[in-house]
Amino acid sequence: MTTSSLPKTPAEARALIRSGAWSTHTAGLVPGAVQANVVILPADLAYDFLLFCQRNPKPCPVLEVTDRGSPEPKLTAPGADLRTDVPRYRVYQHGELIEECTDISHWWRDDLVAFLLGCSFTFDTLLLDAGVPVRHVQCGCNVPMYRTNWPCHPAGIFAGPLVVSLRMIPGPLVARAVAVTARFPNVHGAPIHIGDPVALGIADLSRPDWGDPPVMEPGDVPVFWACGVTPQAVALAARPSLMITHAPGHMFITDLRVEEIASW
Amino acid sequence: MTTSSLPKTPAEARALIRSGAWSTHTAGLVPGAVQANVVILPADLAYDFLLFCQRNPKPCPVLEVTDRGSPEPKLTAPGADLRTDVPRYRVYQHGELIEECTDISHWWRDDLVAFLLGCSFTFDTLLLDAGVPVRHVQCGCNVPMYRTNWPCHPAGIFAGPLVVSLRMIPGPLVARAVAVTARFPNVHGAPIHIGDPVALGIADLSRPDWGDPPVMEPGDVPVFWACGVTPQAVALAARPSLMITHAPGHMFITDLRVEEIASW
Repeated sequence: MTTSSLPKTPAEARALIRSGAWSTHTAGLVPGAVQANVVILPADLAYDFLLFCQRNPKPCPVLEVTDRGSPEPKLTAPGADLRTDVPRYRVYQHGELIEECTDISHWWRDDLVAFLLGCSFTFDTLLLDAGVPVRHVQCGCNVPMYRTNWPCHPAGIFAGPLVVSLRMIPGPLVARAVAVTARFPNVHGAPIHIGDPVALGIADLSRPDWGDPPVMEPGDVPVFWACGVTPQAVALAARPSLMITHAPGHMFITDLRVEEIASW
Repeated sequence: MTTSSLPKTPAEARALIRSGAWSTHTAGLVPGAVQANVVILPADLAYDFLLFCQRNPKPCPVLEVTDRGSPEPKLTAPGADLRTDVPRYRVYQHGELIEECTDISHWWRDDLVAFLLGCSFTFDTLLLDAGVPVRHVQCGCNVPMYRTNWPCHPAGIFAGPLVVSLRMIPGPLVARAVAVTARFPNVHGAPIHIGDPVALGIADLSRPDWGDPPVMEPGDVPVFWACGVTPQAVALAARPSLMITHAPGHMFITDLRVEEIASW
C-alpha cells in the first residue's frame, strides 16, 4: 500500500481492516489516534477483570468496556465492530491459543464483554515529538518487555506480576520523558521505575521476556513503564474458558485523539 | 474539641470516629488527607456500578473498591473498618432513607461491596493554597450543587443526569483554578464547564438543588465541577434493595495524601 493511499481517519482505517485489505500491525497507522489493546471475556469474569484494572491503573488503563453482548465501542468508536475491526485476533480456551484469525464473528456470543485498554504505541509518538529518542523505533525493533517481581493488586481470580516496557533514555532527557508521559495516564502515564533493573527483579536487560533486546548508548538510563501486556498475561494465567485478544501489535484504532485523553 | 486535641493523622481521626467521640462533619479534618465518598451496595449491583463509574470518571473517580464482604479498604486505609470509621451513615432500602446512624455493623452482610470515590473537600484546599478564593469556605456555607440536563453515560440499571458543584471565581483566576485542579482527576479534576449555566440546563443559580446559594462578587465567573453527588443520586434512583452511604459532609478519611493522587 502506498503512502498516498493510507487511511487518513480512524473510520477509514477500520473500514480497510474490516474489508480484509489491512491485516498487518498498526504501528504508525493514523498518527495521533489512540490505539487500544483488546481483551474479550465472558461476562461472568467481567467484574473481576474490571476490578483488577481499577486496582492496577498503571498497566491497565481502561478506555472503554462494551455492554454485555455488544461488539460496539459506543463511546470511543461509535459504529465500529470489534468482531471485524481488529487486524488480527488470538483466541484462547482455558489459557491455550487455539486460533489466530482476522474475524471473530464465528466466536461472538451474547455474553461477551470487550475491554479496550490504552496502548503504548501512542507513547512513542509523544516522546519523539518532544525530542526524546526512542531507540526501538529508530532501529525498527519491538520494545523490550520484562516480567517483574512486583505483584499486581489481585482481584478475584486475576493475579500476577507487573510487566514493564523499557526505553533507554539519555540522562538529561529522562525528566522530560516523565513530564511528557505523565499527562497521559490512560496510555500508562509516567514511568513506574527509573534506574536499576534489579529493583524490579530483572536480572539481565539483554534478555527480555517479550520483544527485542534493548539498544543502549553511552549515558542512557533505563526507564520502565507499566505495560499493557500485564492484563493479557494475568487474564491468560487465570485460564478463562474463552478469551479473545488482538494479536501483538495489531491494535484497535479508536476515534479518540491523544490530546483528548490528556489528564484533566 | 480544642485544636490541640485534633487528630493529626488519618489513623487517629478514624480511631476517634470509631470510638464515637467524633460524629460531625469532616471538613478540614486532617488537612492534606484525601477524603472519600462512600457507596455500599450488594455485590449483584457492583459490576454495573463500577462500569457506571468507569464510563463517568469526572463525577465518579474511584479510589478503591473493597473485596466482596470485606469492610476493609486494604489499599487506601489498611486496617480501617468501613462499618464504624465513617462519622455518620445513611441507610436506604429501595430508594427510601430508613436510618441515619454512626455504626452500620448491624447492617453489614457478606455480599456487600464498598466503593470509595474521591471527594471535592480536597479541592477547596488546593484552590485556597493556590490563592484562588473559595466563596463558600470564606462565608462558612456549603458549596452549591445543581442537577444538570447533561445525561451521564448509562451502565446497566444506573442512569441519570450529571450533578455539578459551583464555585464563583474572579475572571483572572479561572485559568489558575483549571491548572491547579486538572492535576487531580481522582477528586474530579478540572471543571466540566466555565460560563453560562444555561448550557447545563441550570435556570437559576440562586436556587441550588443541594447546598447553599452561591455568594457572587463583581467580576466573578461561574465555574462548574463534576460532583460526587452524581453517583449517589444515580444509585438511589435505581432503588437498590440496600444502599448505605456516608451522610453528606461526613466523609471517610483515607491514608492517601493529596499529592499522592496527582495524575501521573
